[in-house]
Amino acid sequence: MGLSTPKVLNKKEVARTRLFRIEEMNLRFSNGVERTYERLAGFNSGHSAVMVVPLLDDERFVMIEEYAAGTEDYQLSLPKGLVEPGEDLLDGANRELMEEAGYGARHLERLTELTLSPNYMTHRMQVVIARDLYEKRLQGDEPEMLGVHIFRFDQLSELVQRPDFTEARAMVALFMARDLLGQ
Amino acid sequence: MGLSTPKVLNKKEVARTRLFRIEEMNLRFSNGVERTYERLAGFNSGHSAVMVVPLLDDERFVMIEEYAAGTEDYQLSLPKGLVEPGEDLLDGANRELMEEAGYGARHLERLTELTLSPNYMTHRMQVVIARDLYEKRLQGDEPEMLGVHIFRFDQLSELVQRPDFTEARAMVALFMARDLLGQ
Repeated sequence: MGLSTPKVLNKKEVARTRLFRIEEMNLRFSNGVERTYERLAGFNSGHSAVMVVPLLDDERFVMIEEYAAGTEDYQLSLPKGLVEPGEDLLDGANRELMEEAGYGARHLERLTELTLSPNYMTHRMQVVIARDLYEKRLQGDEPEMLGVHIFRFDQLSELVQRPDFTEARAMVALFMARDLLGQ
Repeated sequence: MGLSTPKVLNKKEVARTRLFRIEEMNLRFSNGVERTYERLAGFNSGHSAVMVVPLLDDERFVMIEEYAAGTEDYQLSLPKGLVEPGEDLLDGANRELMEEAGYGARHLERLTELTLSPNYMTHRMQVVIARDLYEKRLQGDEPEMLGVHIFRFDQLSELVQRPDFTEARAMVALFMARDLLGQ
């Protein structure tokens, strides 16, 4: 909305691990101020990430319960994962839904794109709404069977206050789905 | 809700930069399966991160517009930053509000805690609602003056679809504030 984007004077990789890649960027802002920024890149090795809101009907949705190594506890979330090379976004969403929640969907639709922390991370995630579900389980690469739980949209305000549901992207996806269904 | 947390067999740092620290964890799940996980730790060097929802009244809120090095464009977000050592959470929230948006608040209240990606990151952020605002600007460490914009909660559904507003945590904070005000 006005300002011209800072000039990237230099960009280099400063660390790389199995999963993560960290870049350092030298920037010159339009007012002449120069700064060195670090950002997390390649969080998902170039593959599209996708998260699914599985709707059982207009009032209920499916969540998974999975061990989260970042917070070191079991957390509620929505089915999610990486789209495979050559795989369509909606097909990847349906596959993750089958692997993690044990449901397939006859109707899938892209809802939006979310970032995690646009200041510090290049990561983007596509959000897909899945409707007209049927029971179907595919074997994924999870180390253990994930918990599957059904909640109602009229419980959402309380759900987002639970200590075992903290993931902002899944919350946004559910708030947006609730708005969509309420229209 | 049932499963016992995996045993952490080993945890070590595999990379460290100015801003980020990456850890590798060896885990044994309760079914005996062993896995090696990587996670991003120390995203904010142990300081509490805080995000502020500044309410002008029951219908309008203040957003900032800032260059985001992760997505390499200007993005809308809410004022946010790190609480300083010895600083109270609400005082830190008010300071960031003054530095980034040019407002102080007479009433601040903690709303919730959010994670970014609990599977891969230890990061947590506190969300604070700020009311009864007055004009007050403090000098921060931003490389340039941030844009300040006022929006209405009845615009939120359209706002979250804008390509320059993608940050999941700020969206959740606004959806939760809207629910709170609607009660």
